[in-house]
Parts: sequence; structure tokens; C-alpha cells
Amino acid sequence: MSSPKIETFPNPRPGRDYEIAISAPEFTSVCPMTGQPDFGEIRITYVPDELCIELKSLKLYIFGYRQRGIFYEAATNQILDDLAAACQPRRMTVVGDFTPRGGVSTRVTATYTKS
Amino acid sequence: MSSPKIETFPNPRPGRDYEIAISAPEFTSVCPMTGQPDFGEIRITYVPDELCIELKSLKLYIFGYRQRGIFYEAATNQILDDLAAACQPRRMTVVGDFTPRGGVSTRVTATYTKS
Amino acid sequence: MSSPKIETFPNPRPGRDYEIAISAPEFTSVCPMTGQPDFGEIRITYVPDELCIELKSLKLYIFGYRQRGIFYEAATNQILDDLAAACQPRRMTVVGDFTPRGGVSTRVTATYTKS
Amino acid sequence: MSSPKIETFPNPRPGRDYEIAISAPEFTSVCPMTGQPDFGEIRITYVPDELCIELKSLKLYIFGYRQRGIFYEAATNQILDDLAAACQPRRMTVVGDFTPRGGVSTRVTATYTKS
Amino acid sequence: MSSPKIETFPNPRPGRDYEIAISAPEFTSVCPMTGQPDFGEIRITYVPDELCIELKSLKLYIFGYRQRGIFYEAATNQILDDLAAACQPRRMTVVGDFTPRGGVSTRVTATYTKS
Amino acid sequence: MSSPKIETFPNPRPGRDYEIAISAPEFTSVCPMTGQPDFGEIRITYVPDELCIELKSLKLYIFGYRQRGIFYEAATNQILDDLAAACQPRRMTVVGDFTPRGGVSTRVTATYTKS
Amino acid sequence: MSSPKIETFPNPRPGRDYEIAISAPEFTSVCPMTGQPDFGEIRITYVPDELCIELKSLKLYIFGYRQRGIFYEAATNQILDDLAAACQPRRMTVVGDFTPRGGVSTRVTATYTKS
Amino acid sequence: MSSPKIETFPNPRPGRDYEIAISAPEFTSVCPMTGQPDFGEIRITYVPDELCIELKSLKLYIFGYRQRGIFYEAATNQILDDLAAACQPRRMTVVGDFTPRGGVSTRVTATYTKS
Amino acid sequence: MSSPKIETFPNPRPGRDYEIAISAPEFTSVCPMTGQPDFGEIRITYVPDELCIELKSLKLYIFGYRQRGIFYEAATNQILDDLAAACQPRRMTVVGDFTPRGGVSTRVTATYTKS
Amino acid sequence: MSSPKIETFPNPRPGRDYEIAISAPEFTSVCPMTGQPDFGEIRITYVPDELCIELKSLKLYIFGYRQRGIFYEAATNQILDDLAAACQPRRMTVVGDFTPRGGVSTRVTATYTKS
Repeated sequence: MSSPKIETFPNPRPGRDYEIAISAPEFTSVCPMTGQPDFGEIRITYVPDELCIELKSLKLYIFGYRQRGIFYEAATNQILDDLAAACQPRRMTVVGDFTPRGGVSTRVTATYTKS
Repeated sequence: MSSPKIETFPNPRPGRDYEIAISAPEFTSVCPMTGQPDFGEIRITYVPDELCIELKSLKLYIFGYRQRGIFYEAATNQILDDLAAACQPRRMTVVGDFTPRGGVSTRVTATYTKS
Repeated sequence: MSSPKIETFPNPRPGRDYEIAISAPEFTSVCPMTGQPDFGEIRITYVPDELCIELKSLKLYIFGYRQRGIFYEAATNQILDDLAAACQPRRMTVVGDFTPRGGVSTRVTATYTKS
Repeated sequence: MSSPKIETFPNPRPGRDYEIAISAPEFTSVCPMTGQPDFGEIRITYVPDELCIELKSLKLYIFGYRQRGIFYEAATNQILDDLAAACQPRRMTVVGDFTPRGGVSTRVTATYTKS
Repeated sequence: MSSPKIETFPNPRPGRDYEIAISAPEFTSVCPMTGQPDFGEIRITYVPDELCIELKSLKLYIFGYRQRGIFYEAATNQILDDLAAACQPRRMTVVGDFTPRGGVSTRVTATYTKS
Repeated sequence: MSSPKIETFPNPRPGRDYEIAISAPEFTSVCPMTGQPDFGEIRITYVPDELCIELKSLKLYIFGYRQRGIFYEAATNQILDDLAAACQPRRMTVVGDFTPRGGVSTRVTATYTKS
Repeated sequence: MSSPKIETFPNPRPGRDYEIAISAPEFTSVCPMTGQPDFGEIRITYVPDELCIELKSLKLYIFGYRQRGIFYEAATNQILDDLAAACQPRRMTVVGDFTPRGGVSTRVTATYTKS
Repeated sequence: MSSPKIETFPNPRPGRDYEIAISAPEFTSVCPMTGQPDFGEIRITYVPDELCIELKSLKLYIFGYRQRGIFYEAATNQILDDLAAACQPRRMTVVGDFTPRGGVSTRVTATYTKS
Repeated sequence: MSSPKIETFPNPRPGRDYEIAISAPEFTSVCPMTGQPDFGEIRITYVPDELCIELKSLKLYIFGYRQRGIFYEAATNQILDDLAAACQPRRMTVVGDFTPRGGVSTRVTATYTKS
Repeated sequence: MSSPKIETFPNPRPGRDYEIAISAPEFTSVCPMTGQPDFGEIRITYVPDELCIELKSLKLYIFGYRQRGIFYEAATNQILDDLAAACQPRRMTVVGDFTPRGGVSTRVTATYTKS
């Protein structure tokens, strides 16, 4: 299944280096080993260049992981790649903060900087 | 409708580089897409130069967004522009911290520095 | 799709009137109006009679709502009906505590008592 | 201006005495003395009889106070009257928890029981 | 110095037995032993009969203790007496919650019921 | 060593059944088994009759345990006995809430009612 | 392996009906199904009659579960039985509050009353 | 009225660059516009040189603002000036954190460095 | 007894310098002085190079300390050595946060950087 | 009275620059002005060189202040001097965080670096 497309809109202050932080606490995917659901919060922080991320399409994009089997490390990096490709930000960080499994919790933090 | 005017008063210690932080947790505007109300907290931090922001006029200025249709990113940048124009600070940061919509919350942070 | 079966095991102290409280904070279902996912926490408190609920099967039963379209009020009452039928407790309460939608959160509490 | 109508739907378990609690933390009205906005949280708890309150219409009903001049005590009692009239519950409590004004905060609690 | 007068207004739902809770966290008086200031929070809960307490006059009444020398136990009981005399409630409770002095904190709770 | 004497003063509202709660979070004594210090918080709640407890003498009384070897259960009951004897209250409860020793914390609650 | 013996000492106020609450947050046992460790907090509340529980022996008794395979429901009831047999209290409640496994947490509450 | 004098005592470790932080949460003054009381917390952090601030005189100095009409920005800067003049520290920061007025809270931060 | 082996899997984004943080709050070992159990939380933060740590094997590795007699300082450094040897990270920090013993708590933080 | 001696043991990883943080929340001494007890928390953070601090002797050392008359600033610096002399660390910071007296709390932070 292809992921829902991330929509963008023109940055209302393109000349200013300012930050947008988005928190999506209702992320869920499926563990590719056990088939059991995983839960977590995705936090995105970015400095827009020409484009901002449209929030409703982001919500649908996040929902697109609901049935996918994917590891924490891969999911966090994939979300960073997809969002950075969609809006070409100056800088972007994605944090995936996952609920405990077997008494162990995990948080993955990945960063992109426009070269 | 024109925005209420932001009043100022003379900085009581103009020679000192000190910081004033103001929190206005009762910001509300209207979503330009859906017509539904948005809610959030506006936090302003600045180093005054010759002028300080008068708090009662700031409160009325914030109330002036109550009926306006405006996106988060635009509102935060607009508030920064209006306050910086009114008091000409040495530095100023405005944070707009908006309550969740569709399970997703957003925080916008913009900064001005006197050149 | 039929729901996963709730397994039980014999109560280790059948003569004592004691309470078991279980919290499952990773409930998710689908809104039958919009098709969007809903999230919440299911809390179960019961006094066992002859049977106790086996936790792994309860987890799978809760996961069985992941793709179902159902309202909050119906889901909470359905879980109470299914669990009470499976273990025939002396008393049981189910609370469904759902995350905000449109700035409004909902909690449903339903109770069963063996007649 | 007439208030938005509160919609209802049939109670999915009409024979069971169970409780529904709803929290709407984004209530705002206008002070009839000063014309300044007031803010608060409305919490509704009820035991449905034949009808449940539909949440989207409740949200719109709450939004209907945005431009109205009304005191705390009157608003809380009015909400109770309107909701009880719409869904005819067995019991209902409305709490209005208002943010501080002049260093003083207020909470009003009113209850209806079907006679 | 005579205390500021507590104003009242007619109860908007005189036939309903409902509760109003008011918190005034900025109470300060003077210790009659040491002349040092005391600080605390006054919390008032009452069921109105014919009259409600007007909040601005209550705030001024509370401010009237700023220069008075009075013990915790006497202040809490005095506030209850004055408020009950002004609005003749069905029931009223006043709590005085005072900040620590010498590593010891004190809370006084007094209740009035209309006979 | 004799304990410091608990002073009292006349109850300013002897006809009213009201409650005074006192928290002394800086209690320390010595373990009679090991000679090591114990730490805890003493919380006293009472309804005065003719007399109230004077706070400065209470503080000195509490400090009087600093060098005494005494068990938790005995200390809490002894404080209740001494305070009840000094002020002859209508009702009094003393809670001793002690910090963990060996990974185990203890709270003792004792109550006196005037017969 | 036999459990460590629970020691007691004479109640210092045998004529008074008072309560002792003990919290042991470092309970660990082994799941009899998987062989994996379980973790939780044991909270004991009792009204002593002739005997009080000695805390050091209680700590060792709790440590005695470290290698035992036992279910939550059985462990909580067993601790209640053993403690009640050792000190013959007027009333006793034991709560076992276990950390999440598979996203589900459990709390068991059992009570004994001397007949 | 002249302010109470701030007393000092010799720094016990004059050769070491160490920090002293003092929090005085019971600051109150009077608004020069409205005559109404303002409340806040004063936090002082400094690195002493030859002299340390004596705490009892600091408390009395803070109490000296109780009847003075002064704005937040002026009060915070005045306290910094007076304390720095009294003890001639290597560095000092004063924060004034004031409680909300009209739904808006303010925090002023000013710093002194010995030249 | 040899420790359980830490398994690894290939890093899904080997070219990106990103961080993985893991928290294991259910660490327990045995004090080599007293034979009594110790409890704590192990927090691991690392930037992977070619390999990531597999979480289930990490959980078993942590469980391997359950019967071992080892001091806090040695345990934290040993975990860092074993994990760094297994996955050869670019950087890794291990924090051991241990619960109070004798009223004193301890936290050990050790860091490894690939040379 | 001479202070209890601080014991040390050899650092298990002498070649690694790692940090040990110790919190002792049960510090108490006597005010040299008033003779009244003072209470606070001592927090020690250090990077060991050849020696680590043995925790039981540290606890006894802290208890040695129980009867000593000493000011906050002097106590914090003295503890730093004594601990640094005992274990010769690469770096060490001691924080003394004292409970409020007269509505004012104090925190002293002192640091040592091996030259």
C-alpha cells in the first residue's frame, strides 16, 4: 500500500528562520516480528524554507502506518525522509517515543539538514 | 477590522540588557478553513530598548484575534511583527502553543533581532 | 470478523471477595462516522467468582477492536458484556476513557452485578 | 441569536444505568459587566435514559457561547437546563470551572435528577 | 478600619440546590504576635439561597485583611461569619490554607448551615 | 529528658465544630535498634473544644524527639496522647508518615475522640 | 524453599483501634508461564490487635518471592494469608500493584477481617 | 518611607567562585495604576565576593515593598540594584515572577556583573 | 555464570548520525556486601554505526544481573563495556539510577566514544 | 566532636572519565543563631580519579552534622572540602538545598576541580 501523500502550503514568512513543532501522540504500527501492535508519539520539529506541512495530510500520513509492519528505528527514519522530501525544510528533527514492550521503552531521534 | 493598538511606556532601566517574559494563555482565533475556533497560549520574551509593552493594551491586542480567521504559522509571525514594530526591542521571541486538533498539537516559535 | 476469545483460569481464592483491576491504555478502534481512528484506555475492575480473566487473551481481545467501526458508548458496554459473559464475576465495572476529538474528551463507565 | 441545537442518538444500552462523562475545556463567553472574554472548562456527567448526546452538536452548542454576555452562575445552570431538556437523562451534573479573574477563580456545580 | 462591604446579587436559579466554589489564593494578613506578614489561600464553597456573592467585592473584602493583625483560626471563622451574614446561604464552608511558618503549615476549615 | 510543654490558647469560636489541620514535615527521631536517625512528617487534624494548640510550642515539642530513641508506632501514639491531653479536643487524628528504610515506607494513623 | 518467617512485636497501644500502612515498592517474582521476572509494589494496611509486624522480617519475607514462580492473584492472596496468620490483626488489606506486561497493568486488592 | 537595610556577613570561602540561590515566594506590592495588590516570587542567584546577604534582613527588605506602588519591571531592577550595592557580588541575577493579572503573567529577569 | 549474549541487527540508516535511547526500569542485582537486592533503572543512549541493539536480547542481558553481586559503579561501567563491544556504536552513554539505600540514592553515568 | 571519617574504595574503572551523583535528602544541622534545627538535601556529583566514596561512611558523615551549629554557606563548602580531601576527585560539585525558613529558601552550589 502506498503511503498517503503529505500536502504542503507556501510558508507565510519565507525570509524568517523560525521553528514549527508538531506532536502526534497517536502513532500506531505493527511489530514485524510478532504481528502485535506498537504504540508511540511522533514529534516533528522543523524550520521551513519555501513550504510548510499541511496538518490534516500529516495526520492521514501518520494513520497510514496503522497496518504496516516496521521497526522503531526504521519508522522514525522513514518519517523524516518522507517529510523532508515533501517540504524541503532548512532543518528537521523527528523523534519517535515508543511505549514500553517487555519493560523496556525506546526513543529514536533523527535529524536532517539541507545541504 | 483594525487591530487594537499596542501601547508602550518608557523602559525604567534603558541602559541594562534585561529580559521580560509574558504569557497569555487565553488566545483564541478562528480556523480559516473550517470556521471553528482555535485555542492556544502566546508566550512573548523580549529585551527592551527604549520602550516596554503596556500589559493591558497587550491583552486587548490578543483579544483582537478572537474573531479573526488565521493559521497558526501566520498568527505567531504577525504577533511578532506587530509587537516588534510597537516597542522596537533589542531581541524578541514569540511562541504560539496551540491545543490539539485531530490528535495533533502545534507550537510555532519566531524570533526578531534588531539589526 | 469474530472477536478473539477471552480465556479464563480458575480463581485461586474462590471463597474470598477480592478485587482485580486491569488497565489497557492502548485501545484503538475506528469511528463509524468518519473512518478515522479513535484512541483510549480501557480500565476493568472486577470481583471474581469461579474464574479469572487470562491477561494475554484479554490483550488480544482488546486488539480485536483495532479495525472495527464502533461508538464509545457501544464499545464500553460491549466489552463489559463480553468479559462478564466469559468469567461470570460477582461484580464488574468497565471504564472507557477516550482521547479528545474536536477539543472534547469522553469517559464511559458501565457496571455489571451478578443477580 | 438562538443557540445551536443539541442533537441526540438512541442509547445503545437503554436498560443499563451507566455514566457518560464529557469534558469541554475550550469554553469561552463574554463578561456582561466588562465586555471582556471569560474562559473555562465545562464538565458534564450524566446517566442516559432513552437518548445520548451527540458530541459534534455539543461542541457547536458550547461554541455558541463565544459571543454571549453571561455570568458564570447563569451559564452553568443554562447548560444544565438545555442538555437535560434535549436528552432527558436519569441524572446529570454540569460543572463550570472558570479561569482566575482578579486573582480569584470560581467553579459552579449544578445537578438535575429526573423526577 | 471597617472591612469593605460584601456585595451580593440575586441567585439566577433560586429553586435549585447548586454549589459555588471560589478560591482566593492571594490572602495576606499580619501576625498579631510578631508583626510579620502571613500568607495563605482562602477557599469558599457555598449553596446559595436568595443571594450570590459578587466577586469583585469579595476580592476587596479579602484585600481588607492586608494590614490587620489576626490569627489563622480567628481569620477563617471571621470570613465565614461575614460571608454568611452577607448572602445567607443554605450551607457554606470556608477553608484557610496558610503557608509554612517555622516549618509548620496550618489549614483551618469551618462550616455554616442555615438553621 | 522531659518533653517541651505544649502550650494552648482559648478557642476563638468555642461554639462551632470546626477543624484545624497542622503539618510538621521536619520530624526526626532515632531508631532504638540501630541508633540511626529516622525522618518523617507528622500531620495533626483536630476539632478544638475550649483550647487550641499554640504552634510555636508544638514546633518545640516536635523538636524534642530529635534525640529520642522510639519506634514509629509508639511515636505516633505518644504524640496523639500528649496533644489530646494538652488541649482536650472533641476529636483528633495524628498521622506519622515516615521515609523509606530498607526500601519500605510506613505510615501510622491514630485517632482520639472525647468520650 | 520455605518462606522467611515474619517476626512480630507487641502492639504498643493494644487498646486503640489505629492503622499501620506499609509500602514495599521493590517486589519481584517470576512468571510461572514464561520464566521472566515480574515487578510490582506491595501495599499493606492493617489495624493491629496484640501484635505488630516487624519491618526487617517483612522485607526479607518480600525478598523471598524473588525466585518463586507465582501469578499476581495468587501472590497477593498468599501475602495476605501469611501476614494475617503471623500477627492476627483486627483488619488487613494487601494491594499488589504490578508493572505493565504487554501494555496491560494489573492491581489485586484482598482484605481480611478477624471474625 | 526608606527601605529596610540589607545586612551582610563575611563570605566564609572568599577564594572560591560558588553560587547562592535564594527564593522568596511571598513578595507583594501595590499596582501604581489601580492601587490593587500585586503578588509574585523573587528569586536571587549570586556569586559572593567578600560579603554574603544575611537572610533575615533580606526578608525584611522584601516585606518593605508591601505598601509601595511600583511596576514589575521597576521593582525587579530596583531589588537587583539594592542587593548588588549591599554585597558587591561577582555576579547576580534577580528574577521577578508575578502572578497573572487579566489572564496575563509576567516574569522579569535582570543581571549584574562586577566590572 | 556467563551473561546472556547481546544480539544486534544491521542499522537501517547507516549513513545518518541519529540517536537511540532505551530505558530499562526493572534492573535488579544483589549487593556484594550484604547479599540484599538492589534496584534501579538503566538508561542507554547511543548513536549506532553498523549495528543496532536487539531489544529482546538486551532485556535478557539486563535480567542476567538478577543474581549477581556487583556494586553500582562496576555494574554501570560493565553494561557500557558489554553493549559497546556488541554493537560498536559511534557514541554511547549508560546511566544507572539506583533506588535509595539508607536514605541515600546514587546515579552513575559513563560514556564511550569510538576512537 | 570530630566528624566521622569518609571511607573510600578503589575506582573500578580508573581510566574512564565518568560521573557519580549522590543525593542525601535527610541532612539536618542546627542554626548557630537560634539553636533551632535546619533541614535540607545534600547533592554530590563527582568524577572519581583513583578513589570512590563509600556510601555507608558518607551517610554517617552526613549524620555527623545533626548536632552541629553551622550556617548553610559554611556547611556546603565544608562538605565539599572534606569529600574532595578524602577521595581526590577530578571534579566535584556539592549542592545544599535547604528548606524554607521565614518564607525564604536557600540553595548553595560549590565546585572543586583538581588542579
